[in-house]
Amino acid sequence: VPPLPTSPTRAAMWNAERVVATPRSRGELWEAAPGVVGLRGDTLALYLQLRERIADLARASAPDEWRVPEAIPLAVLERADYFASFPHWLTLASHLDDRRERLEAIARSRRPALAASGSATRASAALPPAVCYHTYAALADSSVASPTLMTAEGTCWRHEGDETRALERGWAFTMREVVCLGTPAAVEEFVAERTAEAIALASACGIQASVEPATDPFFAPTGRGRELLQRLQALKHELRLPLGPGRTTAAASFNDHRTFFGEAFAISLADGAPASSGCAAFGLERWLLAFLVEHGPDPARWPHVLHPLSLEG
Amino acid sequence: VPPLPTSPTRAAMWNAERVVATPRSRGELWEAAPGVVGLRGDTLALYLQLRERIADLARASAPDEWRVPEAIPLAVLERADYFASFPHWLTLASHLDDRRERLEAIARSRRPALAASGSATRASAALPPAVCYHTYAALADSSVASPTLMTAEGTCWRHEGDETRALERGWAFTMREVVCLGTPAAVEEFVAERTAEAIALASACGIQASVEPATDPFFAPTGRGRELLQRLQALKHELRLPLGPGRTTAAASFNDHRTFFGEAFAISLADGAPASSGCAAFGLERWLLAFLVEHGPDPARWPHVLHPLSLEG
Repeated sequence: VPPLPTSPTRAAMWNAERVVATPRSRGELWEAAPGVVGLRGDTLALYLQLRERIADLARASAPDEWRVPEAIPLAVLERADYFASFPHWLTLASHLDDRRERLEAIARSRRPALAASGSATRASAALPPAVCYHTYAALADSSVASPTLMTAEGTCWRHEGDETRALERGWAFTMREVVCLGTPAAVEEFVAERTAEAIALASACGIQASVEPATDPFFAPTGRGRELLQRLQALKHELRLPLGPGRTTAAASFNDHRTFFGEAFAISLADGAPASSGCAAFGLERWLLAFLVEHGPDPARWPHVLHPLSLEG
Repeated sequence: VPPLPTSPTRAAMWNAERVVATPRSRGELWEAAPGVVGLRGDTLALYLQLRERIADLARASAPDEWRVPEAIPLAVLERADYFASFPHWLTLASHLDDRRERLEAIARSRRPALAASGSATRASAALPPAVCYHTYAALADSSVASPTLMTAEGTCWRHEGDETRALERGWAFTMREVVCLGTPAAVEEFVAERTAEAIALASACGIQASVEPATDPFFAPTGRGRELLQRLQALKHELRLPLGPGRTTAAASFNDHRTFFGEAFAISLADGAPASSGCAAFGLERWLLAFLVEHGPDPARWPHVLHPLSLEG
């Protein structure tokens, strides 16, 4: 893969670490836990503008917007064969054992945080690793027209341990997805259109993007994991944005799942065939980071290309 | 406490259960887990309008908006004396044990969801039970001007077991808060103003609200819990909206914490005295529910009072 064209001057000026250090020192970016970020001030204003542009783009192709639930049942992830592919990311939502004597012991403890963390019940729900699982779960065991389109934004959770980095790779981050169910041809067209739009959006932000084939970081020591990996290979592309010399981030991905989810969730087309599905997923904090790397952390230098953003041409 | 004035006709028509059944049957409201709700269609559009009105109101008094992190360290909750008061609500965010053999066992398991739920690590972070803890944590060990104002919206988590009800009492729900730090007089004025604004907002939505003194549902079997309860008594008021005959919900609360958080987080005023704090918290799903109870689930009957909403007079 050849390196992306970047302006040598610019690349010498900013990279991901240095461009995050400035809002951090201004108190505009902080982490409550590694990869769990708060924003305020100019950095938040920029994030909200990017978020709104991406939402507008999504709604233009998929007027049916959903507000997806903040948790997802483990049973849904099991049906999606999630555990064979990405168990390493999973974050669970566990409430405390609510027996009175256990709660009293926590309330009386001299180290109550430690006592509470040892009193979690077994989780039945996870924090969503992606938005589109909600779509397949909601449409499970039904028949859909082609194309059926929806969009949603949600907080996603992927625990990546030492790989975690503010904005670039969050434990919690914000994903805007557009999902299409339908015939193979409808999904192919959907994926191609969303890819072209994302390139145009990057360009309107003054960022030179590249689109590259990709594979998900499958957890693949098992036969099942390898089988899934092979099955979905060559069906994923990423929009990569520069983060400084020799480094890029996948700020969006475009996925053709073929009939993988249609079969897993028994979603069929009018003729009874399993529906194909595809999605375009935008990682909002990565767009913010790439914009900051491109234009620097000084708000006075941010192009107002964002305000009347044109995606034509 | 006298019953709220409600129109007998209207009260006979709708209550919380019946008014939620309609969007549920239309597929516009569903639960991924008890009290973890998804929305779409007209019900989502109404929710978004209410959310935006409440956000506008908050920003008018507190232009400094924050995007708060999606998790909060257990150490912050300990500093806020959370465990003596509300341990029963707490929800933890736990990732899986990331040793390769443990992940492989999950990936190979015939019941991977069950295997995963038994492989959670001890949590160091919780899902936020309220938005304003983030403010005190961010301003800890510093000095602030009076008044210092901020606003944020965030997903909050409170596990209430059998009490959980869609929109009325969510495990996950959306809270918009406005927070004030400053002198006792500045906080008192802040709380009074936010209370008056919330009454006007309810009225503009065609909903007759009442403001009542309240106490938080403290977990108070311990001396420390009872002490906290007593200390904060008479300093909390709730805006209650009708949910049908003889039933209301607290759709907003107005809290004067005196110097409780100022002392706990070492936030001082210019003269070195601990800062007082207060907050106004809006439960967005409860506003949606109360609006539906008042006007019914048929979008054609929703007053467009929301579109050009005037809060004057």
